[in-house]
Amino acid sequence: MSVLIVGSTALDSIKTPHAENPRLLGGSASYAAVAASFFSPVKLVGVVGEDFPQRYVQLYRRHRIDLTGLQRLPGKTFHWSGEYEANMNRRRTLLTELGVFETFTPTLPAAHQGAQFVLLANIAPSLQHHVLEQMQRPRFVAADTMDLWLNVALPDLLKLVKRLDLFVLNDSEAQQLTGDDNLFTALKKIHRLGPEYVVIKKGSHGSILSGPRGLFLCPAYPLRKVVDPTGAGDSFIGGMMGCLAAAKGPIDSQIRRAMIYGSVVASFCCEGFGLGRTTRVTRAQIDQRAKELERLTGF
Amino acid sequence: MSVLIVGSTALDSIKTPHAENPRLLGGSASYAAVAASFFSPVKLVGVVGEDFPQRYVQLYRRHRIDLTGLQRLPGKTFHWSGEYEANMNRRRTLLTELGVFETFTPTLPAAHQGAQFVLLANIAPSLQHHVLEQMQRPRFVAADTMDLWLNVALPDLLKLVKRLDLFVLNDSEAQQLTGDDNLFTALKKIHRLGPEYVVIKKGSHGSILSGPRGLFLCPAYPLRKVVDPTGAGDSFIGGMMGCLAAAKGPIDSQIRRAMIYGSVVASFCCEGFGLGRTTRVTRAQIDQRAKELERLTGF
Repeated sequence: MSVLIVGSTALDSIKTPHAENPRLLGGSASYAAVAASFFSPVKLVGVVGEDFPQRYVQLYRRHRIDLTGLQRLPGKTFHWSGEYEANMNRRRTLLTELGVFETFTPTLPAAHQGAQFVLLANIAPSLQHHVLEQMQRPRFVAADTMDLWLNVALPDLLKLVKRLDLFVLNDSEAQQLTGDDNLFTALKKIHRLGPEYVVIKKGSHGSILSGPRGLFLCPAYPLRKVVDPTGAGDSFIGGMMGCLAAAKGPIDSQIRRAMIYGSVVASFCCEGFGLGRTTRVTRAQIDQRAKELERLTGF
Repeated sequence: MSVLIVGSTALDSIKTPHAENPRLLGGSASYAAVAASFFSPVKLVGVVGEDFPQRYVQLYRRHRIDLTGLQRLPGKTFHWSGEYEANMNRRRTLLTELGVFETFTPTLPAAHQGAQFVLLANIAPSLQHHVLEQMQRPRFVAADTMDLWLNVALPDLLKLVKRLDLFVLNDSEAQQLTGDDNLFTALKKIHRLGPEYVVIKKGSHGSILSGPRGLFLCPAYPLRKVVDPTGAGDSFIGGMMGCLAAAKGPIDSQIRRAMIYGSVVASFCCEGFGLGRTTRVTRAQIDQRAKELERLTGF
């Protein structure tokens, strides 16, 4: 099965204490699509401007990503610029130029409307909702979000969450959304908003799944060096959805393994700037790291 | 095998946003001893004053803790008072009255000097060292510490760490000790100080073991309500050492399971004030939660 991935496609200028890299390929959909491509065919829906480098189109193509849904509009590609602090846990945005993204409306090509696995990567919840409106009968719909939408578009987000099978958010967003400091009671409250599956991401502390079979504590792969964490969360959910789309059998029996694989792709993502490391990784390296994660938690 | 546990024996007055409990049984050795007692016989070494309630002596006895090494001196028992913030992650000390602890020198009864498993629970590193000087040939020596000793007694601590088999500290202490934000490279640096095994505790995010067989990522049990986290770290290492002392076979093949059990006892500790919940737990409940932790991480 293929995965339909809708989200932002951007150019990221990233500064860390050790280096500065201008105009890398970025955006939630780019990270998620490349991550998912290791496991299943991917259909990308997004928008870029006239300045979008041809080499990034080629990068998508090397990952056999279907670009039928990638609009190219007059104007500039969404450009984000950010700077990380020494320990890589906090970043601040230096600049956001929306460009063609400002008026973006994701319109699905007819061939995409029957997709079974849909990932609504982080964009405005109203756009995520607009995508769902165009779908026929997807089997499994997941969405990611960010604190911005909790602050400025909460009613839209709550409307969306009702229709999801899987909602993914990070720990501070879960606490903000529920007003609950305890992640396990926060999970219960988020289920009440609609989704059967909820995943809370905790960065280097791993992630927690709550679903019909109860909780799963998913570890993060131990990284001795984090080069650039940008896109790690998008890579996680992208890898997870790619894995789910490729798997046979009920979601419930596959979702833990899918999280492990998402966690592994996210770990590779952190080892390079932008998609620099992820695009050089082989499926065999991913499988090996997934096995290693199993050994690291077994007792 | 029995475990020799040396550390503080105290009265704790604990305030949380929900309740206030004066003069509970506390101290690193008390928590560790009760935790270890579920798995092996325990010999406690510590000091209390004339005000030490008889009911706490009875509590130790109910856990079959050997009190030959518990000195009772003229004066007052060490009294600590602290207050937790709403999310239970931060606490501040309101009062510390050292009492008889001020001049405490742990002297081992002859019968204790041949102990095979030794836990130097959190006290001044010079006292921990003094205990080691009295031992014959212990098989496995573990020590815990706290930020205070990194600040005021670092040379003593480094001298002690050289002689340990297992050094346990929390994440912020590991970062302070090594000047390294990355826990995995910090672990490597701590090995260079001496110990073959190092455990970094991360509170509700679990703990990490580094040893001859590599890393082990140990989960924390998911708690929907934390009543009082005081003593959780002491319970963790106490349970772990009790488990190791009871196990057959090389340390290396037992230590992961021992950590899981330590983690389970620590989770019970957080569910009540002081030792209130831990002392009411059965071994069957502990085994059940350990099995549950296995299910929560398996995939």
